[in-house]
This record gives sequence, C-alpha cells and structure tokens, in this order.
Amino acid sequence: MISSRGYAAFTPKGALAPFDFERRDPEPNDVVIEILYCGICHSDIHQVREEWGPSHFPLVPGHEIIGKVLRTGSAVTKFKPGDVVGVGVFIDSCRECAECRSGNEHFCVKAPVWTYNAEDPRHGGFTYGGYSNNIVVHEDYVVRIPPGLYLAAAAPLLCAGITTYSPLRHWKVGPGQKVGIVGLGGLGHMALKFSRALGASHIVQFTTSPNKRDDALRLGAHEVVISRDERAVMAHAGTFDFILDAVSANHDVNILLSLLKRDGHLVLVGLPSDPLAVGAFPLISGRKSLSGSMIGGIRETQEMLDFCAAHGIVADIEQIPIQKVNEAYERTIRADVKYRFVIDLSSLK
Amino acid sequence: MISSRGYAAFTPKGALAPFDFERRDPEPNDVVIEILYCGICHSDIHQVREEWGPSHFPLVPGHEIIGKVLRTGSAVTKFKPGDVVGVGVFIDSCRECAECRSGNEHFCVKAPVWTYNAEDPRHGGFTYGGYSNNIVVHEDYVVRIPPGLYLAAAAPLLCAGITTYSPLRHWKVGPGQKVGIVGLGGLGHMALKFSRALGASHIVQFTTSPNKRDDALRLGAHEVVISRDERAVMAHAGTFDFILDAVSANHDVNILLSLLKRDGHLVLVGLPSDPLAVGAFPLISGRKSLSGSMIGGIRETQEMLDFCAAHGIVADIEQIPIQKVNEAYERTIRADVKYRFVIDLSSLK
Repeated sequence: MISSRGYAAFTPKGALAPFDFERRDPEPNDVVIEILYCGICHSDIHQVREEWGPSHFPLVPGHEIIGKVLRTGSAVTKFKPGDVVGVGVFIDSCRECAECRSGNEHFCVKAPVWTYNAEDPRHGGFTYGGYSNNIVVHEDYVVRIPPGLYLAAAAPLLCAGITTYSPLRHWKVGPGQKVGIVGLGGLGHMALKFSRALGASHIVQFTTSPNKRDDALRLGAHEVVISRDERAVMAHAGTFDFILDAVSANHDVNILLSLLKRDGHLVLVGLPSDPLAVGAFPLISGRKSLSGSMIGGIRETQEMLDFCAAHGIVADIEQIPIQKVNEAYERTIRADVKYRFVIDLSSLK
Repeated sequence: MISSRGYAAFTPKGALAPFDFERRDPEPNDVVIEILYCGICHSDIHQVREEWGPSHFPLVPGHEIIGKVLRTGSAVTKFKPGDVVGVGVFIDSCRECAECRSGNEHFCVKAPVWTYNAEDPRHGGFTYGGYSNNIVVHEDYVVRIPPGLYLAAAAPLLCAGITTYSPLRHWKVGPGQKVGIVGLGGLGHMALKFSRALGASHIVQFTTSPNKRDDALRLGAHEVVISRDERAVMAHAGTFDFILDAVSANHDVNILLSLLKRDGHLVLVGLPSDPLAVGAFPLISGRKSLSGSMIGGIRETQEMLDFCAAHGIVADIEQIPIQKVNEAYERTIRADVKYRFVIDLSSLK
C-alpha cells in the first residue's frame, strides 16, 4: 500500500483536518500521481456538509487535480514518470456500457466512480480525493496537461472547465450567436472565457453583483446585465440563441426562457435544490428547450485541455495552502472568491 | 359584407346557440370559403369558458376547418372556386417579421391573428371561427387539401395534426428510434399515426386508461404502458430517444425525463395550467431536454397534409350535427370521444 496524507472532514459539521490513509499499490494499468494542486469546488462543500445526502467519513474531497506522474504500472502505455496530468470528477466507470464505450463515461449507466466519497466497486472501500499528496488512478481516467498552462490555474479546468466547455460545444456555440451566461462564479467565469474563445458574436453576462461588471468584461463578456434590473433583462427578450445557467441557488428560469429566440436553448449546469417551476407556455411559444449538462467524458476533457492550451485559457484563481481550507470554504459559501480557490499541496507537511 | 351564420357562445357559462353575423367582402387576395366541416378542439372549450383569460363574446369557435372555395378576390393565384381547402389555427400574421418570412408564421413576433376570439389588426373587429357556414381568409393562410382524404376526418389535421406532426419532424423521429406518446386523445392518436408512418422503430403509448390498449395498438403503438403502473413505466427507464407529451392536465414530467436516453427529448404539446416542477438533476444526468412545440407554419401544414395523403392518414372522428355541439363539449371534457368530434356544417340551417 502507498502511504497518503491529506485533509479530511470527519463529521458533516466539523472542520477539515490532517488525515493519514493508504492508497492501493498500482495495478498494471495504474498511474501513481503526486498531487501538486487541487481546486475547491462548491460540490466539495455540499458533500462534506451532507447537503446532497449521506456522505462517508472521513471524507477527503477534491476532484480538480493536477499532478505529476511518479510511477506507472507495468502495462501503462499512455503516461510515463514526470508527465503532468489531471484527474477530474471520476476515476473509473463500468467500462462496458454503451456510454463508457462511446466516450461518455460521465453518463455510465452504472454511474461513474466519483473521485471521492464514492464506493469503489473494483477495489472495495471508498474513494479519497485530491486534498492529498498522491492518488492512484487507472490510466484511462487520467488526462494529459498540455505544456504552457499555468498549472495551479489549470486545476479548475478538470471540473469547472469541462462543465462549461462541454455544453458550449454540444450546442455548437460560435460565430453569429448571441450567448448569455447566468451567474459569475467558478463556472460562469470559465463559460465567459470559452464562449469568447469559441467566437460567439455577442456574450451577455447576467449577474446579481454590480461590482462584477468590470471583471465580466475583462473575462470576455461584451455586455453585462444586472439580473435584478428587470427592464434591462427584458430588453433582451427573444434574442438569445443559447443561455448557460450556472446558478445553483433557486431562481426563476421562465424569465431566462423568455430571453431565448425561437429554437433557443437554456442549459443548466448549476444544481438548484428545489425543483424548477417551468411554465409550459414559455417552452411552447417558440419551441424552446430547457436542458442540463454535467461535466464531460475523458476524451472531451482532453479536448478541452488542448483547447485551453491553444487559446491560453486557465481559471482565475486564489492559491492557498491547505491549512486555509476551512477559511476558503466559508469564503466560497459567501461567493467571496475570484473565481476559484486552488490548494497548493506543497503546503501539506 | 357577406352574411354568415354560425353557433356562438354568448357568455362563458352559457350554451352555444345560433348566431348571425357578417364577414368582410373579399379583398383582392382573399378566398371566400364555404365551410364543410370543423373539428372541436379542446382549446375551443378553454376559450369559451375563459379558462385562458378573458374572451370576446359572442364567440364563434373553430380552427380545424375544411371547406370549398366559393369565390376568390381578383388577385388570388393559389386557389380557384371549387378547390377543397383548409384553414387552421391562425388566419393572418404580420407578414413582415423574420418568423413570418421564414414560414414560421405561428411564431410571428407580433403574434399570429388567431382564427377566432382574436382582434384582427388589419380589418378591425374580432375574428369568428369555423362553427359557421363560411369564412374569408387571405390566400397565404389557406392550405390545399390533397385529393383522397376523407374530408370530415381531415378537419382535425389542421390543429391536432400539425401540432403533433411538427415536433416529430423537427426532432427527426424515424427509423431506429424508440418513441413514447403520453396521453391518447385528439393529439395522442395523431402522434401515434404519424410516428408509425415516419418509421419509428418502437412506439410506446402511455395512457391512464387500460381500455384504450387495443385502440393504441390499432393506431400504431407497438406497446402500451398504463401510466399508473409504476413498475411497467420504470421498466422503460433510460430507453427513449423522444417522448411527445400530449397531456394538458397537471402531471409529473420528471418520471418522463427519467425514461429518456442520454440526449433524449421530452416535448410538450399539451398546456398544463400549473408550472411544471422540473428537477435539475433529471435534466443534467443525461443531458436531456424538455421542450415545447406549438402547431406549425403554413408551409409545414401543407407538407403535413401532403404527407397524410401519401400515407392515408386522417383523424379518427365522431361526426355530429352542429345542434349537438354543447353535448359534444361535455363529452370532450370527459374525454369521451374517439378521438375528435367534427361538426358537419351541412346541418346548419
């Protein structure tokens, strides 16, 4: 077994604290990764606090992982020691279903094996995430970090990046299109960068925070609309081809549907806890669609990373030592971060 | 002016009764149509009873109109006296917006001029529908009924037909696909016929009425599932490419979303009065979409009629004299009709 050290939550209410545990010895197709950086995703907090149902403790969160290959199993062909790699939201899946075989492992019919807080059906026990000094992952669930990306700021690409890139690509956002991004946080700021790099003709950021206006423009928006200004919002009625809704708080999606053109798409990437109250009329009067999207498969995650390298895209981050993780959680909850905390794991003694 | 006679509602609660009124003299591009048949659509009842907001009385309903051209304005090129024609849910639109110019008059940005109970901005006054002996319509809003269709049974094609045909075509339902139809009434029974004619590989009818099973199979379903049998419903989880939801009563769409495959589409053509409670998770876990669709444009309505002639498709109807319209309303509300009432206007003295 491989000795590991990380930070774990021990109860839903307690602070994260140092935790020693073990990882499996590498199997022939496994890669042993020294973790350099790990982003803090809001879903880490949801799971620590059991806001999405019961969790398994001790819980080592973290699924925005950047690291360096330490060693490889005897059959590994894709990576060699020293390679800079990433691990995202899942570290395995059934590998047999139509979804897995078509590169949609994130929609695996048996459910992917999440990077932390999940039973590992192949090895037993529970998975431990990236707030730690190492991880052991099958090579097919590891992605390559292309040269040229600032590594700490690349960590959030593994979740916030692919979560926003995937729907923008799936719905073919590009030149000639008017695109709306709702919510300017970890997800929203990546969506702005990607929409701009994909060549969308007019990008409108919707935000409740007037003080984020300048940031939104800097990040790629052509225009910023304050969501509480109903007149300003409704001036865009019927004009959007595509709106990406990155808000996890409960909110009214019917207003957003009314901003779409005929055949426009509103796509959720946030996960509000309450069901959305959707009027049939806003959908029917313009053949509009409300959809959802969730991370992406391994192949598309690699494509996203290569796109980021080609366009010089990383997240805007605030780097912290792991000793500040509990404070970072409080600030994340208050949306007091521009726009993602990333833990520097070299701080872990 | 042209003398017209029809049946009108005079108050939201009263019965429909004979009503004499006038139509405009034909303008150069107008067609004067003798009405032969008119279907009874549930939306007629909603509007008579002011269930969708205030109506204008006297109200002559009817937007599933089959008739014969009596005479034409001096500039009419598309029709000549004696032609068998149809008029659907709208009889005009702005003719200038991008929607009108692209054959999507039903999505006209100024709203189409509905066939009845609507202000007519071009001529003043309110529109009167097809429960009457004649109608005057601009030729661009009249469709041709191809030879070979049983005329009384073709009337419901003008609303129930296009309402179901349009989304099946838009979302490219065809061979290789598993299709669900929810609700077996005026809309659902047309959706079955169209899905079958379009070559869908497996068509499942969902109905709350076990006694409709044989009918569903006869109309085109390969399989019938009783909606209240949760086990039977969930046996189809994750398997549908496309589900058309023709239920206007309030109901749980999350179950239907769970029956879709990845990237599957649930499309509403009914209009439940309450907002739908839609969980974000069912949308996100499989990149599914919830959409709506509403009738179709003139060009697509003509295409649908030609498709019906090529495939021998008409509605299943119960033909009535207009004197039975009030009784037919009561039976429509009880869903006691297979599957559409059609008024034979020759009964109008």
